[in-house]
Amino acid sequence: MERHVCADCGWIHYDNPKIVVGSIVTYEDKFLLCKRAINPRKGFWTLPAGFLEQNETTADGAVREAFEEAQAKIRIRDLLAVYSVTHISQVQIMYRAVLDRPEFSAGPESLEVRLFDWSEIPWNDLAFPTVYWALHQYQDIKDRESYTPFANATGDILRKSLEIIRR
Amino acid sequence: MERHVCADCGWIHYDNPKIVVGSIVTYEDKFLLCKRAINPRKGFWTLPAGFLEQNETTADGAVREAFEEAQAKIRIRDLLAVYSVTHISQVQIMYRAVLDRPEFSAGPESLEVRLFDWSEIPWNDLAFPTVYWALHQYQDIKDRESYTPFANATGDILRKSLEIIRR
Ligand SMILES: [Zn+2]
Ligand SMILES: [Zn+2]
Repeated sequence: MERHVCADCGWIHYDNPKIVVGSIVTYEDKFLLCKRAINPRKGFWTLPAGFLEQNETTADGAVREAFEEAQAKIRIRDLLAVYSVTHISQVQIMYRAVLDRPEFSAGPESLEVRLFDWSEIPWNDLAFPTVYWALHQYQDIKDRESYTPFANATGDILRKSLEIIRR
Repeated sequence: MERHVCADCGWIHYDNPKIVVGSIVTYEDKFLLCKRAINPRKGFWTLPAGFLEQNETTADGAVREAFEEAQAKIRIRDLLAVYSVTHISQVQIMYRAVLDRPEFSAGPESLEVRLFDWSEIPWNDLAFPTVYWALHQYQDIKDRESYTPFANATGDILRKSLEIIRR
């Protein structure tokens, strides 16, 4: 495990896996996506998501990120997926969430925020493979009240996510 | 957000929430618990669980921890719960898992490892509230193939977990 002795406090800091929280946000069968204003993947479309902060619940973090990136007040429904992105040591915790009204706008980390019909989603301009996974896994269970949350995509969804997203 | 400039590498390290991975491990309706050999809560009973490492999936981490703490080769079934323990900035990801054979022994961080019937569980000697939550939430859904994973306990389970565990 990597470790570092800190110049500020003298403590040893371990490099631990980081937690990303986000959501598939829908309004009347449309999907809320944000065009990234910052690198990595500036100009590509992503879900409202970001790093969990100290002393925050995962659901509260997902709500905060949707407000920061899309100025959207979302309501969390349930857990969609837990992804382990091992090559960058991230665990991504993704929820299903809804917008009660179509009110949103680009926050400082977004160039543009839009609602897309499934058929309009800019599949060739998604920022990350996990955005593709979450959208497709959501679509599989969108009419179900209860389901087992997803882990990393496999098979066709994984393969296509890597084709589409030129890494 | 707390930050530190590192003496070793010059990078800024943020203090991020940490990820704990663990499982409710059963063998024929019995629960595998470990008596802690180390602080915090030395001498109290816990689930096989610990910090996720770099470049590890959450499920692989839970399997590794069960082997380290209980020398047990477990098989992960599905996701039981995602807890946010905000006062210590931990996200705990808990699975349902099974032992195919009753083979286990105390690893270096355990004083003792045992299988308990539900009625024999040492409720007054559990290490952490989330151990109490996970056991009770598991018991609620133990016969179900599919269910929505749990978040932090509320109501009676939360109240009793805080009574029993003298913090
Ligand atoms: Zn420090
Ligand atoms: Zn460093």
